[in-house]
Amino acid sequence: MTERPVQRELVGIAIGAGHFGPIQLDSWRRVRGARIEAVCDRNLTAARSAAERFTVPRFGAAVEELVDQVRPDFIDVVTRPESHRELIEFAIDRKLHVLCQKPLAPSLEEAQTLVRRCNDAGVRLMVTEIWRWQPWYRKVRQMITAGEIGQPFHARFVSRRSDGRGHAPFQRQPYFRDMPRLLIYESVIHLIDVVRFLCGRITSVQCLHRQLNPKIAGEDFCLLTLTTAANVTVTIDAHRHGPAQQSQTSEHLVVEGEAGSLELRTDGAILLRSIDGDVRELRTEWPAEGYLGDSCRACLQHFADGLHTGEPFETAGNDNLETLAVVFAAYESAASGSRVTL
Amino acid sequence: MTERPVQRELVGIAIGAGHFGPIQLDSWRRVRGARIEAVCDRNLTAARSAAERFTVPRFGAAVEELVDQVRPDFIDVVTRPESHRELIEFAIDRKLHVLCQKPLAPSLEEAQTLVRRCNDAGVRLMVTEIWRWQPWYRKVRQMITAGEIGQPFHARFVSRRSDGRGHAPFQRQPYFRDMPRLLIYESVIHLIDVVRFLCGRITSVQCLHRQLNPKIAGEDFCLLTLTTAANVTVTIDAHRHGPAQQSQTSEHLVVEGEAGSLELRTDGAILLRSIDGDVRELRTEWPAEGYLGDSCRACLQHFADGLHTGEPFETAGNDNLETLAVVFAAYESAASGSRVTL
Repeated sequence: MTERPVQRELVGIAIGAGHFGPIQLDSWRRVRGARIEAVCDRNLTAARSAAERFTVPRFGAAVEELVDQVRPDFIDVVTRPESHRELIEFAIDRKLHVLCQKPLAPSLEEAQTLVRRCNDAGVRLMVTEIWRWQPWYRKVRQMITAGEIGQPFHARFVSRRSDGRGHAPFQRQPYFRDMPRLLIYESVIHLIDVVRFLCGRITSVQCLHRQLNPKIAGEDFCLLTLTTAANVTVTIDAHRHGPAQQSQTSEHLVVEGEAGSLELRTDGAILLRSIDGDVRELRTEWPAEGYLGDSCRACLQHFADGLHTGEPFETAGNDNLETLAVVFAAYESAASGSRVTL
Repeated sequence: MTERPVQRELVGIAIGAGHFGPIQLDSWRRVRGARIEAVCDRNLTAARSAAERFTVPRFGAAVEELVDQVRPDFIDVVTRPESHRELIEFAIDRKLHVLCQKPLAPSLEEAQTLVRRCNDAGVRLMVTEIWRWQPWYRKVRQMITAGEIGQPFHARFVSRRSDGRGHAPFQRQPYFRDMPRLLIYESVIHLIDVVRFLCGRITSVQCLHRQLNPKIAGEDFCLLTLTTAANVTVTIDAHRHGPAQQSQTSEHLVVEGEAGSLELRTDGAILLRSIDGDVRELRTEWPAEGYLGDSCRACLQHFADGLHTGEPFETAGNDNLETLAVVFAAYESAASGSRVTL
């Protein structure tokens, strides 16, 4: 019998205490094998407040100083997209592993360069793609893999939010208003990653997008039609201009296959329809604590586990380039009116 | 007070006693101001059987003979697409008005020629587009026009049938199996007409289609993204490869607007969601008799009324050219991968 090795607890610094930083800090407290030792934010008040709230020992505004003090194993980048490159390059210089929020970079070329540089330096890079860690998507994948609907041929995601309406939309992330590329780059990127998780490699993209709220710079509505290597046709229909709604668990998803179909409802219920029309509802208990079925914790745990075991991350830099390629192809398709083959 | 003029009852000959002929013959019996005097079918047994079943005085296999005997005001063409041209040309020669099933012709050019020739000859041509006469679509249009959801920006139709599955699909219309263009040309054409009815002129089409059942020649799945002059983005998601289902009333339709959204469910219920998230279900009684909310009768009544009053038909030949243009543009878009502007 082999003895289980004693696992050293990995130490990280969280960078960014804005909207999503606190969600990750809360989740880190429930991760095994790693902990956050310091919180960094250019806004020192925000850094202090987050450190106090989540009982993180240190905080500061200058990442270099904190790294010198803590000598961490990794940094957890939860800042806005435009700062990612600088922070990843800093991590490469200091030989720190990196967990970085999406979108990794504002262009595919820049993302490719960052990924290559991390690989060359032996720095492990994972993109914080939390969506695929939502337990209902894990369950849906399990059901598809188990053949419960046979060979899938179509999946349709419908995502609705109401926070993009009105004269002052996106109250929690007001900088959204000024982003020239908003919905796909910032939100639908998650669903594209989930499509890859559920349906495999995406081979082509057709996209139409538009701006519903004239108070913003970018698009807040998109329709994507994707094809995959496994011959699944996928639709993503998303906007943030919907009616006010009760809190919802998930996007609405239907996956149709040769032997039946499954429906993931916005309340998290999963319905399985056999080809004969019988309907069965799966009463699954989803974790009540944490963010969206505790998906953030699951994602962070995966990062910590991967650092310990050396196993590849599901959303390693290399992998995430495929998600980003679809994002940028979507904009290209919308501009040209043509399907873009990947 | 003006006296109501005595209305002469118009007389027609129904041509085609196949799958849909009997549905129209049944509906004709409940139309005011017009009647069917003879049934014609190349298959004399089918013609006789239909005449007996719907107590039509005459039947025959040769349309010329029946026209000579009956001297009708109009013919009602319920035959397969490939016979439409010959029958319409016959009607033009004999100065008979024509009600003709969709699709009018296998190419836009041919349809344009037929429409022009009818117009030149003073023959009134209406295409039998029954779908838009379904009372739930009338109600939806009324609600949109009344401003109940404000300015619409998106509509999504989802249409599912199960009759395209298996080794011998389309049992009721087996010739569907051999049609090189099937789903859009034969079925989705209805929804395109409904889109025009609800959302106005269609300005561009993006389409992806595929064949799910290898036992057929054409496509049985399509995704269309349409734009309209009134700036409504429309999705049509249709296939006939779904699970067996209980009888359904309607396609599933969601229309989203600036002041709320409405949902037409497959059981015919209409839900209205205000922008504040309040949901109200409209309990509307739909006609129980006849085909799909007695839409066939309503369509035939519109034809009879139009002949009496001289008012334009909603789906006159001219009008239907716009529907057909979208159908053919969809195939063009699917072939090229590009959005087609109309």
